[in-house]
This record gives sequence, C-alpha cells and structure tokens, in this order.
Amino acid sequence: MFEINRYYTELPKSYLFSRIAKTVADFKSKHPDARIISMGIGDVTRPIAPAAIAGMTEAVKAMASADSFVGYGPEQGHAFLRSAIAETDFSSRGIDIADDEIFISDGAKSDIGNFTDILDSRIKVAVTDPVYPVYVDSNVMAGRGGHLLPDGRWSGISYMPCTESNGFVPELPRTAPDVIYLCYPNNPTGTALTRHQLGMFVDYARRHGALILFDAAYEAYIESADVPHSIYEIEGAKECAVEFRSFSKTAGFTGLRLGYTVVPKELYGLGADGSRVPLRQLWLRRQTTKFNGASYVIQCGAASLYTPEGREQIQQTIQYYKTNASVLREALQQAGLTVYGGVDSPYIWAKSPAGYGSEQFFNLLLERCHLVTTPGNGFGPSGEGFVRLTAFSSHQATREAVSRLSNLL
Amino acid sequence: MFEINRYYTELPKSYLFSRIAKTVADFKSKHPDARIISMGIGDVTRPIAPAAIAGMTEAVKAMASADSFVGYGPEQGHAFLRSAIAETDFSSRGIDIADDEIFISDGAKSDIGNFTDILDSRIKVAVTDPVYPVYVDSNVMAGRGGHLLPDGRWSGISYMPCTESNGFVPELPRTAPDVIYLCYPNNPTGTALTRHQLGMFVDYARRHGALILFDAAYEAYIESADVPHSIYEIEGAKECAVEFRSFSKTAGFTGLRLGYTVVPKELYGLGADGSRVPLRQLWLRRQTTKFNGASYVIQCGAASLYTPEGREQIQQTIQYYKTNASVLREALQQAGLTVYGGVDSPYIWAKSPAGYGSEQFFNLLLERCHLVTTPGNGFGPSGEGFVRLTAFSSHQATREAVSRLSNLL
Repeated sequence: MFEINRYYTELPKSYLFSRIAKTVADFKSKHPDARIISMGIGDVTRPIAPAAIAGMTEAVKAMASADSFVGYGPEQGHAFLRSAIAETDFSSRGIDIADDEIFISDGAKSDIGNFTDILDSRIKVAVTDPVYPVYVDSNVMAGRGGHLLPDGRWSGISYMPCTESNGFVPELPRTAPDVIYLCYPNNPTGTALTRHQLGMFVDYARRHGALILFDAAYEAYIESADVPHSIYEIEGAKECAVEFRSFSKTAGFTGLRLGYTVVPKELYGLGADGSRVPLRQLWLRRQTTKFNGASYVIQCGAASLYTPEGREQIQQTIQYYKTNASVLREALQQAGLTVYGGVDSPYIWAKSPAGYGSEQFFNLLLERCHLVTTPGNGFGPSGEGFVRLTAFSSHQATREAVSRLSNLL
Repeated sequence: MFEINRYYTELPKSYLFSRIAKTVADFKSKHPDARIISMGIGDVTRPIAPAAIAGMTEAVKAMASADSFVGYGPEQGHAFLRSAIAETDFSSRGIDIADDEIFISDGAKSDIGNFTDILDSRIKVAVTDPVYPVYVDSNVMAGRGGHLLPDGRWSGISYMPCTESNGFVPELPRTAPDVIYLCYPNNPTGTALTRHQLGMFVDYARRHGALILFDAAYEAYIESADVPHSIYEIEGAKECAVEFRSFSKTAGFTGLRLGYTVVPKELYGLGADGSRVPLRQLWLRRQTTKFNGASYVIQCGAASLYTPEGREQIQQTIQYYKTNASVLREALQQAGLTVYGGVDSPYIWAKSPAGYGSEQFFNLLLERCHLVTTPGNGFGPSGEGFVRLTAFSSHQATREAVSRLSNLL
C-alpha cells in the first residue's frame, strides 16, 4: 500500500480555528437562543466597497459576451492589477517594486502555506510565540517540525517569545535560522514593530543569510508614523525578505479571495551547487506549475479599489473597524483588564483576570457573555493567559459586547 | 545563506505552455498583421452561461450589503455547491458520493499539483507518455524525479507509452508504482478509455495497493456510451482513486477559476506505524491549513449551472466545441492526415505529415497557416510526430483554420 506523508499524522488533530468553531457550535446547540457575538476568527462583516462591487459587476458582465470574455490569465495575475499595486502600495511610499515582482493569488494563506515548497526541506525555521498557526503547521507538514513537545511547541522550530516583559518585540534568534516568519502588525497580539525594531531583523537576516517571510496582512490598520507599512521601507530588505499582502482585512475580501506576494529580484537562495538562485524564478515556476491564476472577476474588483474613490471607501471601512478596536480597548481597560494591540491593528490581546488561564477566560466569555474570542494559548505557550478579540464586528455588536463585558468584569 | 529546493533547478527552464506562448509572441512581433488562430493552449472562447452570470451577479450584489455579505466560507467549499455536485455529477449516475468527500478549490491544476503533498516524499509515480506536464513537474519538484534523461523523461518516474500501436491505451505498469496518474478523456491525445479498459487499472491498483489520481477534466465531452464519466462508475474505485474535476472545460471557467476533488472515505494510505490512514482526513487538513476556500462569487456561479437551465446552457456550449472538433477532425482526415481524439474530447491528436517531427509541423502550421498548435513532443517522447489541436475556437475561426490547412496540406 502507498505511504502517506507521515508528518501529517504528527500534527494535533485539528486546526485551531476549526476546533474553536466546534466548541462554539456545541454551545449554540445547547443554547439555541443565545445571541452570540463572534470576536474569535478574524472574519470581517462590513460589505464590499461600492468601487469593487462595480468592478466585479462589470467583469461578470464581460464574461457574458464572446467579445469581452476572458479566459486563462497570467498565473502571476493580470498586468492591470499588478501595476496598480506597484504604483499605489509601493511607489507612492517611495518603494520601487516592479510589476513582475508581484504575484497575485487567491489569498495570503495559500502563498504563505506554499512558499517554503521552493526552499530546501531541511531549512531551519524561526517563528514568534504566539504565532499564526499556518507558519508552523505548514513546516511540520514539510518534515521540519522535529517532534511535538508537551507545551505544544516543536523541537525542530525556533520560537521567539513575545511577552509583556519584552513589550511583544521578539528577541533576535540565538541560533541563526534559515527562515524567519514575522507578521507585523502582529496576529495575534495586535502589536506593531517600529522602523528601528524591524530594521534590526533585516540587519540580522542580511548578516546571517536568512530569509524573512513578512506577513503584512494587517498593514492597512497602521496609524503610528514610525511603523513601516512594508518591510521594503527598510534599507536592504529586498535582499532578504518576501512580503505577503492580503485583500481580506484591507478590503473585506475574506469570501472573495485575493492576496499577493512580493518576491524582489535582488533575493537569492543557495543552490545545491553553491550558486545563487533568484527566488523570484523559483516562485514563478511554482505558480505556473501548480496554480492557474486568481479569478479575473475578483482581480477586477481589487483593481477598482486602487482608484481615488476605491481608496476612500476602503479607508472608511478600516476606520469603522478601528473605532471598534478603540471602543473595545477602552472598555476592557476600564473594566480593569490589561490590554495590548488595537492601535495599529484590528486585534486586541487581552490579559485574563487573575486566576484565569486562556481557556478558562475563553469559556467564561463564551458562557457568561456569549462572546466568542480566541484563547491565546492556541497560538503558542507564550499566548497563555491571554485571549484575542477582533474588531471586525458591527458597531452595534461591539457596543453590546462591551456592555456584557462591563457587567461581567 | 538559506538553501533552495534543489529539485526546482533540475527542471527544464520553462513550463511547456509558457515556452510556446513566447514562440508565438515572437512570431507576432515579427508579423504584426498575421491573423493568428490559437488552437494551442486549451483555453475556451465561448461566453459564460447566462445561469452562471445570473448566479455571480446576484452573489456580487449580496456582497454589497452587510445583511447578505459573505466572509470566509468553509475551506472545502460551500455546502450548497457540494450537495449540488454530489447529486448531479454523481448520484444521478448511480454513484454514491457524500458532500463531505467533495473539496471545492480554485481549480484542478492547483489540486493536482498539491495533492501529493499528503503522500510520502519517496512514493513511486507512473504517468502516461505523452502526459500533461503538471503531473511530472509537481513530482520532480517534490524530489521524486530522479534525473532528467536525454529524451526528456525522468529516471525516477515510470512512463506508460500511449502510441498508435497500442491504440493509446496504456499498458499496466511493469513494476508496481504507488501512484498512477490517469487523465481520461485524455490530454493531450483526445482518446478515451472504455469501462473495461479503466476497470483494468482499478483492478491493478487494488491488487497492488496503488493510488490512482484520476483527472476527469474533460468528462463533459464524453459521448460514447461505454466510456465512464467518473472513475467511481468502476466497482472498487472508491478504495483506490481520487478524482479531479474542473469547471474550466465544462463551463468555460478558465478565467473564473473553480474545480473540485473527490476523496472517498473508503480510501486509505499506509501510515509510518503501519496503520491505515484515511486520505480524506489528510486532504482536509492540507486544505484547511494551506487554502482558504474558493471565491463565494464563483461558487455561486457554478451552483447555478446545476439547475435545469444551467445544464442545458452548458450542454449547448459543449456541443458547440464538439462541432468544431468534428469539423477539424474531418478536414484533417480529408487532407490526408491521420488523426485521433476529437470524439469524446475537445482535443485532436494529429499525426505530422511524413518527414515532419512535432516541432517542424508546429512551426509549419504557425508560419504557413498562422495556426498555433502544441507540439506533441512537449508532452513526452511518445508524443513525437504529433501536434495537439483544440476545438475551443469559434466556429468561424475553426472554419478559417480548416480552409488554411486544406490549402497547405
């Protein structure tokens, strides 16, 4: 009988968010009348911006006629969208990214999950703790995990703790890894890195020949002037970093599916013969072989967001969520909790009341406030003692949640 | 410096279709006035069926309002689409496939390219020759290729020649592989397997504990009564086969992006500890970790095709292309060429005139008829001496191509 990838069976049974969904579903079935407010999984709730609706409507219409029908597009995305991205997301910030360094896809999760396909199977990986589980699980699946430790970490992966004591700024890895995953503004802690702090990582990566996989999915929420929107704002980052972007949290595309990845031409890895191999070529090869491009309709929707009206409309939605974040943050603080994040990020990292672990606080909030959060320990041992709340609900639901929280705490 | 996946650099420089696109682009730039007819890459040209347009239009509209907005869907696809597929594509043919054995994705190419992630890295793979390059390249990327032989084949992969002498019905592999890729109706030869012929493979796979990865992307073109539409029409196939389906050639979704994969619950692989592990669980884990679902808008479009009007509309388009296939097939035969395929398939496999290899015939057709085909040797050494033509052009272009061909040949 053919053998399976044994690393899959070493993973704990189910992915964090699927497990929480099940807990919540069980609660719902026992309490069918409970008006549950979800601040758990990072899904958005506001409608898609009118500009994107118009762009998609037009694209759907084009598909109805042979003259305007669009078939296979380039695997790396349509030129009209790549050039809009290069101009608006990078050039306007003084960053020079060429259209052919941008790869459109069906989402950042796919790209992040697939990216290490193009790296050696034995590379050493470093992640923050707490961490977005996809960084870890995708490497475990590729045989890079070693074995599972009792605290939920993996022996083959380096963890950089992000805790109250270091202000959630990870220390540089002690033993040099090949790949460093960074997500800033951070999921789950909602904290950000300043230009100087991120610069330390870029310097470190260049010095040690490491690759930074930089997840900038929450870039649109940045308001602090000294927090970079792109890692390429840092000198030398093009020689050591890949950046992942998402339309999910920027424009509400969680159900539409679109993201992109930047792989600069200056970025090289080491070939088996000692040669320097451009990563961009490898990722292009990966995408042309195992992917067939993102949907034309959705690409047209995204392109419409790069017009002045489109920019304005998505800014309104982002401000809407940021208002929620402020409201949540202040209410939790007034209730006596210690909270982090929620300034340059839609996530709030709330410290559990004394005597409560993550899971207990999660259960308390579910049972007493009918509020779904995410237990911090699900993101790694340094997440113990916290829960993550998202600001993606409606104003009304946020106010209702705040009121229930105030009564409880 | 971090090491790359060295297997990527062992692959020939560029993917077949990208290379052809470049040849054609070069020709176009030298002959800007040439009215080129493309029968090379398998892209469709007819507009999307009105039912799907209506479904997508409505879905886009729903996204414009908070009440009907849809965020993250299940990674394995929305229930409404999975149940429509289970009913129409399987149950109506007497095949019992449960909704949760169906995984919707952004396309068959992604699923086929990614599927062996869940298998051991050392599995032995068998493919037909000629072959759709993705089956081979994705395994080479995973380190299963061995080394490249002078004829373009790989030492670590078993090839099952499909030639005129065996009527394009591959012989069963001599040394038992772990995985057998089959694409029927076949890309590129356009030939099909009868129920009996496919049954031989199912029996073989069950006897040897092999897995069949069955690519049924062209199922909608089948007209012969004894050609199965699904491998699950064969007794025992659920215990040994995964089936990939695509909306690209069925409903013109090449630019919209949608496909699905069936992983039956009866299908097990061998774990490292000797246990039998359900493949469905592994694929679910892969998709929930590295994929975030297909676009809601596109899933709504596809679901609308499972209505009676939708069925009727896509049948009309398929008949349109099948008419092209007949016209092409007859014209080529009348011009004295030997042709295969084009009956249960949109592909025609035309034998080059005496004295011409695949590339010479490809160049002749490009230069003299301004007709783009695909050289058969690009699909493997047994494809030498053939070119592939697709029936996806308009009637008018097909007639024009036939006229140019008749003048030339």
